[in-house]
Amino acid sequence: MRRRIRTIPDFPKPGIQFRDITTLLLDPQGLALSVERLLETVEGEIDLVAGIEARGFVFAPALALALGAGVLLIRKDGKLPGATIAEDYTLEYGSDRITIHADACAPGAKVLLVDDLIATGGTARAAVRLLRKAGAIVEQAAFVIDLPDLGGADALRAESIRVSSLVAFEGD
Amino acid sequence: MRRRIRTIPDFPKPGIQFRDITTLLLDPQGLALSVERLLETVEGEIDLVAGIEARGFVFAPALALALGAGVLLIRKDGKLPGATIAEDYTLEYGSDRITIHADACAPGAKVLLVDDLIATGGTARAAVRLLRKAGAIVEQAAFVIDLPDLGGADALRAESIRVSSLVAFEGD
Repeated sequence: MRRRIRTIPDFPKPGIQFRDITTLLLDPQGLALSVERLLETVEGEIDLVAGIEARGFVFAPALALALGAGVLLIRKDGKLPGATIAEDYTLEYGSDRITIHADACAPGAKVLLVDDLIATGGTARAAVRLLRKAGAIVEQAAFVIDLPDLGGADALRAESIRVSSLVAFEGD
Repeated sequence: MRRRIRTIPDFPKPGIQFRDITTLLLDPQGLALSVERLLETVEGEIDLVAGIEARGFVFAPALALALGAGVLLIRKDGKLPGATIAEDYTLEYGSDRITIHADACAPGAKVLLVDDLIATGGTARAAVRLLRKAGAIVEQAAFVIDLPDLGGADALRAESIRVSSLVAFEGD
């Protein structure tokens, strides 16, 4: 798994080691293994798998198919055509906004959150707040990569989320 | 299939009937049926399934898993961390650019192109040019939705692509 993830230095800016999953996805075995191992982290029944735009979209449907669940797309502002609810989150400079369709999630639906990577967890925590605002029960989140030094997984755990990841890169 | 796709009038601008697949994806049966029926359209061996950002990412991995193929992400400019090759295409006003990693595709690799919808086909044709520039053999493209009045599928066929779609909305 780890050897199939490529590291690109200084992207998107100097000093950042970008962990690139495109090489993992190009490899049929890497893709299959990622999905299989993400599935092993899931506990109990799941109604919807929520993927965060854009790389979360890669994993959410494959997990949903295997779990007999639907897929909920968490998109950037302005991308969803229907009535939406939104949540803002802080970036290093400024802020950003994610949205879901206001009618996407029945109250009480059990939602698994999925993304390729968790770093500071700003987007993932906003996603949890947004899903809970819609009435979802969010108790689990699964990521391919964790950058534990940035604290995102711990921050999610502090919000009563069971966090799983397949590969950790320390020293980031 | 058709009844699970919602139509939102006047998005993203007045006069456009937006065909919204998020309702299809939320439904576990809709998701499973879409993937199953897309798979039925595929002929012969496929090495890589190429999905176009962002909604193409939803379908490409599920197809790739079933086909024993890898996934190739076709992304908007500036999103891929490694060395890329690019292709520009014309929009109604101005132009846009898609990219792939320069080393994503071995020459001679058989690539299936996937996206949620084909309208004028500008992005899909640029994707075919880009993949062929990388040395790929691109002979098939599969879409959930076709808007045949906009001519995109025919334009792709004129470039020797076998085009499949699951639902057509006429009068768009």
